[in-house]
Amino acid sequence: MVTSPELKAYAQAARAAARALSTASPRAKNTALLAIAAKLEAQQEALFAANRQDLEAAQAAGLSKAKLDRLRLDEKVLRDLRTGLQQVAEMPDPVGEIEGLQIRPNGLQVGRMRVPLGVIGFIYESRPNATVEASALCLKAGNAILLRGGKEAWHSNRALVGLMQAALQEAGLPREAIQLVPTTDRSAILEMCHLAGLLDLIIPRGGKELIELVQREARMPVLAHAEGVNHLFVDESADPGGAVQIALNGKTQRPSTCNSLEKVLVHQRIAPVFLPMLAQAMQKAGVELRGDEATCALIPARPATPEDWQTEYLDLILTVKVVNSLEEALEHIARYGSHHTEAICTNHHAHAMRFLREVDASLVLVNASPRFNDGFQLGLGAEIGISTSKLHAYGPMGVKELTTTKFVALGSGQVRD
Amino acid sequence: MVTSPELKAYAQAARAAARALSTASPRAKNTALLAIAAKLEAQQEALFAANRQDLEAAQAAGLSKAKLDRLRLDEKVLRDLRTGLQQVAEMPDPVGEIEGLQIRPNGLQVGRMRVPLGVIGFIYESRPNATVEASALCLKAGNAILLRGGKEAWHSNRALVGLMQAALQEAGLPREAIQLVPTTDRSAILEMCHLAGLLDLIIPRGGKELIELVQREARMPVLAHAEGVNHLFVDESADPGGAVQIALNGKTQRPSTCNSLEKVLVHQRIAPVFLPMLAQAMQKAGVELRGDEATCALIPARPATPEDWQTEYLDLILTVKVVNSLEEALEHIARYGSHHTEAICTNHHAHAMRFLREVDASLVLVNASPRFNDGFQLGLGAEIGISTSKLHAYGPMGVKELTTTKFVALGSGQVRD
Repeated sequence: MVTSPELKAYAQAARAAARALSTASPRAKNTALLAIAAKLEAQQEALFAANRQDLEAAQAAGLSKAKLDRLRLDEKVLRDLRTGLQQVAEMPDPVGEIEGLQIRPNGLQVGRMRVPLGVIGFIYESRPNATVEASALCLKAGNAILLRGGKEAWHSNRALVGLMQAALQEAGLPREAIQLVPTTDRSAILEMCHLAGLLDLIIPRGGKELIELVQREARMPVLAHAEGVNHLFVDESADPGGAVQIALNGKTQRPSTCNSLEKVLVHQRIAPVFLPMLAQAMQKAGVELRGDEATCALIPARPATPEDWQTEYLDLILTVKVVNSLEEALEHIARYGSHHTEAICTNHHAHAMRFLREVDASLVLVNASPRFNDGFQLGLGAEIGISTSKLHAYGPMGVKELTTTKFVALGSGQVRD
Repeated sequence: MVTSPELKAYAQAARAAARALSTASPRAKNTALLAIAAKLEAQQEALFAANRQDLEAAQAAGLSKAKLDRLRLDEKVLRDLRTGLQQVAEMPDPVGEIEGLQIRPNGLQVGRMRVPLGVIGFIYESRPNATVEASALCLKAGNAILLRGGKEAWHSNRALVGLMQAALQEAGLPREAIQLVPTTDRSAILEMCHLAGLLDLIIPRGGKELIELVQREARMPVLAHAEGVNHLFVDESADPGGAVQIALNGKTQRPSTCNSLEKVLVHQRIAPVFLPMLAQAMQKAGVELRGDEATCALIPARPATPEDWQTEYLDLILTVKVVNSLEEALEHIARYGSHHTEAICTNHHAHAMRFLREVDASLVLVNASPRFNDGFQLGLGAEIGISTSKLHAYGPMGVKELTTTKFVALGSGQVRD
């Protein structure tokens, strides 16, 4: 088991590496990213062997097929990781860019220079791809990362981090810019949370319990996502066929993700047309429907309980409510929504604009599937997670969200009157 | 004394007000700002009377002249507040602005819409002007504010908040957008820190003890400033006369502020010329000099103790060290600096650029006084405080720093493959 002094030493090494990395050239960072991609290909067999150890242990422990799938490193996973690394390498380097340079009346030139955050603590669960994705984004942004992965992926993560450290070294960068916490003991999470002054930010990615633990214990800023109790409001003027397609995509395209659809609110005037179409499509897709009284009068659905309105199912279950107006939909979302992803289907311009403006969520969509709440889909190139807290980042976090800006001022002897 | 349920009711009222304010028109908000300015003039005598109650109590309690000065509302203070309110009203409204709208390959239009943070808790000490300045910035940004002022300013703050609430009402906005916590009991600070889910952000402004208390107790994000252990590095190539003027301005223009100069590092090659000039200017200004061995060999100065390198004096004391190189200066600042304000005097372009890039502080200056670390001086129009934490805001926080962005996506039926 890791002891506090040992973990502190890792964090101190990360701090020193972060200082070096903050002024590393874009070329050195990109060389390291491409070297990681090359090694993922060259050392494929060794990675598969390490991954097999994890898979065998997981199988022996009786993990579900879904969890085994998430844990597996195969050729497709490695190919996707290599493509991602190449894309990150090709992205413009955010560090050192000066924004909004203006000349003040006294001649002082003032701007904001984009700089790395420092050391990021990343606490996550089973998928070993996250090890590489998070490290690559942090490296591009000039941050050091301290990784605490799940115990199921221990051998895979150790192999991946070893490979990335070798790539850093080849590029002339400090190996300690990417480090794996040397234990999967749960106590290491608490210890990381208490390393204030050494970690600038903690990003927890995983279940509700993990995220709440980190939010409660951390003595430094945390960027976390709450669960996604996501709604689609089908307005009176919506195209019912298009709305069914959006609901179906939102619910069934990958039901276990936090940007999946959990609730449909439908305007009473379109409900008699829309709901039977929705019911048919959802039944065909194996989705269980629950509904309020008005819904149950129109389609076969189980009566919804009060808990249904606040539950993130992450499963093939959808709860439906008939509302009298846009206002009622907005009130319902303000009360039950989790600030994650909210959508409207409408052909009424003013309703679209009002929904967009008034709904408080990390992504608000008009006539599109909530499944688009993803860094790649929204054009960030990649993401390290989705933030549902409003400070610093709200929504998917890419390279830019892993940096900050400091003020810079260029003078010629200016003093204050 | 305030009880928890009562304070919670204030925060809940603030939340409801924040929702209304988030969609208020720029005109309504600006009308309220200008109405506050008009009432500050019209109700001047009533404000002076309330302020007199505070001043008399403070005098009876034996407060220092400096503290009485900070507490006093006079014609000049009110005039400055009115000017500030007019400037904030004239600033462009940040809310609703969409940044970086791009069309994705599938036709989805994606951008980021600037939105208010919600409810801000503001905990501050004696100056009653801060009551109006902070409220005005929050109102412009579309946030509700819950103010907890110091007990010395109780009557003044109550009069100012009453006046601002009347102005909100005249403009058709909810009075609860600006509220004063109905007690100055210290327990109210702890209670505010525990109102997670009701306050989106706490900004503490005051002494180190207050800030550390809030950082330790708050269950929501905190934007705070650490003390300013601010350095000026006088490089070999600096203009010694200009460097003396910058040091003098940094130290003496208003020594009690966090952006004042506390340490001078001087390159050994320029020390024999620069230090006697510095000593003469500082002695004339009544500044006590402390120094390392090399400094004490060149000018009259008290030998510095190890504590001197990490102390924010906020007083007419300055500690000086002779260094061998830019590298040594950078190391010293990385070790002892507090990420607040750091400056270099140099005529060497590469040294200026390296200092700017490598020093990690909320403002890094070349050839200018550290006293410029101030929202108005840096062109933000006004500030609610200076953040020395890197998340969300680093440096002075103006209207924009009191907002965030959410993602918005405009589609025409897009779903994910």
